[in-house]
Amino acid sequence: MAASLRPDWSGRLRLLSDYCEHERVGALVVSTPANLRYLTGFAGSAGLVLVTPAEAFLIVDGRYSGEVSGAVADGALARVSVVKVDQRVDQSLADLIGRVGARRVGFEAAHVTVATLAGWQKVTAGVEWVATERVVERQRIVKDAFELGILRDAAKRLSTVARHLTKIVRGGQTERDAARAIDLALEQAGFSEPAFPTIVASGPNSAHPHAHPGERRLAAGDLVVLDFGGILDGYCVDLTRSAVVGQASARARALFEAVLDAQTAAIATVGAGVTGADVDAAARRVLDARGLAEAFLHSTGHGLGLEVHEAPRLSPARSGPAEPLAAGMVCTIEPGAYLEGFAGVRLEDDVLVTADGCEVLTDAPRDLLVV
Amino acid sequence: MAASLRPDWSGRLRLLSDYCEHERVGALVVSTPANLRYLTGFAGSAGLVLVTPAEAFLIVDGRYSGEVSGAVADGALARVSVVKVDQRVDQSLADLIGRVGARRVGFEAAHVTVATLAGWQKVTAGVEWVATERVVERQRIVKDAFELGILRDAAKRLSTVARHLTKIVRGGQTERDAARAIDLALEQAGFSEPAFPTIVASGPNSAHPHAHPGERRLAAGDLVVLDFGGILDGYCVDLTRSAVVGQASARARALFEAVLDAQTAAIATVGAGVTGADVDAAARRVLDARGLAEAFLHSTGHGLGLEVHEAPRLSPARSGPAEPLAAGMVCTIEPGAYLEGFAGVRLEDDVLVTADGCEVLTDAPRDLLVV
Repeated sequence: MAASLRPDWSGRLRLLSDYCEHERVGALVVSTPANLRYLTGFAGSAGLVLVTPAEAFLIVDGRYSGEVSGAVADGALARVSVVKVDQRVDQSLADLIGRVGARRVGFEAAHVTVATLAGWQKVTAGVEWVATERVVERQRIVKDAFELGILRDAAKRLSTVARHLTKIVRGGQTERDAARAIDLALEQAGFSEPAFPTIVASGPNSAHPHAHPGERRLAAGDLVVLDFGGILDGYCVDLTRSAVVGQASARARALFEAVLDAQTAAIATVGAGVTGADVDAAARRVLDARGLAEAFLHSTGHGLGLEVHEAPRLSPARSGPAEPLAAGMVCTIEPGAYLEGFAGVRLEDDVLVTADGCEVLTDAPRDLLVV
Repeated sequence: MAASLRPDWSGRLRLLSDYCEHERVGALVVSTPANLRYLTGFAGSAGLVLVTPAEAFLIVDGRYSGEVSGAVADGALARVSVVKVDQRVDQSLADLIGRVGARRVGFEAAHVTVATLAGWQKVTAGVEWVATERVVERQRIVKDAFELGILRDAAKRLSTVARHLTKIVRGGQTERDAARAIDLALEQAGFSEPAFPTIVASGPNSAHPHAHPGERRLAAGDLVVLDFGGILDGYCVDLTRSAVVGQASARARALFEAVLDAQTAAIATVGAGVTGADVDAAARRVLDARGLAEAFLHSTGHGLGLEVHEAPRLSPARSGPAEPLAAGMVCTIEPGAYLEGFAGVRLEDDVLVTADGCEVLTDAPRDLLVV
């Protein structure tokens, strides 16, 4: 069955209208860029969506309004009423809120700054502003068929890049040159851009999970972390492989095997009804048994979609409430172990949560690569 | 006189400590990434600085704390006390606020979201949170000798790319291929990355100021907007040239001349004591006289520094208070004119405000390029 060519924007907007009706807010202001794109297709850097129980508006400034009106007419964006900012966006928003007669107006508390809210309050005397949390994000967390079509395709393309890593990366290269070569491969694989700055961390640098590629040259015996992702039609995928330059020492090999086993255990734990904390605990247990509990410096994974880090989080239970995973969520599984002064290893794949487990979307071999 | 090798972090932090003392806040939390980098050199994606009248702390999570402590010891970062997040950053911040005994704590209202502030308030009962506006940004707006050394160098490198545009961009290329070629030239010029996604907008697409490069091929007679920038040692520069493929029509030529004259007028207006609104008005007057008032869809310029868009703004007076420019500010001057269905033109250079005018840091010819 072919995925539809365009997202079901009207369905997505209708869910929000229903939310407004249910929560008795006259309107909801959406300002988070990824949420704007999800609801309307609008991918510009500045815009606001106002949803009421009955309709939806897209407020954009003069730089965009020509393009946007055309795109709405063509069906390339959701069927929204386009409101062009006259002078100041605050005032255009206030005017629109007045026009639709909303007295209680929801806003995205996780995106709106204290200063922005103060600005809105100033021009909307009599309006009660209601903090909302993750309303659109809750819709986004389970991917629909349209989104899964893109994510599957993107994961396949990223796996192709991963399978060529031993040709792309070579001993003697600088980290920076290796990162550039990976970026070129991402482009050739059809990604519009990297999902984040590519990480190539070699030797002792690999002990830093977020190292920036530098002028260090990949030297014999180095472990090398290669972490990269791409954006396809707005959707992000993310993958990490670890490599050794030439021969791996016994210590390097043991570190790699521990992370591989941790990742395998975590992937085996994923499934609808399981929490992210359960998956994280599975990875952590394996590393703990190898004396590497302290070496695992980050969480086990994160959701993927229009943002490269989105819900769900796969983190220790202590770092927040652990909601159960559900079929249709897409997330990374990426345990790592980092020994300061020696090296680090990380392995990362992207999985689709299913009713009884998961489907690993990235399908490149997970061996320790030899470069 | 050689610029110093490292920024004067202690001087920058001392100004903030003085601010705390003067405003009677026991501590100020800095969370805006560019401000963190300015104050401490820390360029990671997650961290907080807490400054008190007496000292400064950098709160980072486990992914960074190893690197950061080493870098502080080496002098590669400011002399701050590094606080490693134990479990949750909110709690680590609250503990530190308790330890320094601050009762009134400032936060950056333009960066902290409503949800983040609510989280902080929850774990700091008894603390009064005080919204502050642009405290560090006000320090950043006038560049010091260290910063000007980098910005001058960056502007020279960007000008070199601009001078080669007629070799980099060719008729028949797709916009996307032309943008890639510019990105490669930025890399070869020594920039660590583009300052923003490069814009190549051809023919009717050039009428959209923020067009994304697409599969359209540059065709004979097209006007083409080429807008690109680079980051050097964290600092951003930004430049736009306009080109024609082959022969320009009389209408295209007139549009270009209008924008060139508007830019010349704006540059001639810049100087200490003049407001951004004055500079904007100078550009707008020229375009107005050519019947292009409605075609100028954005403001005349913006500041450059650790962010590609920072203060000062050079916008119409109606869009906000117009503070006077001061010597040492660096900003773009980039008027444009956009005729839907026909084409657009923009020209952009980077200037350093001086006591009696400005120094144009980007020194590539401003002619209509022929490609």
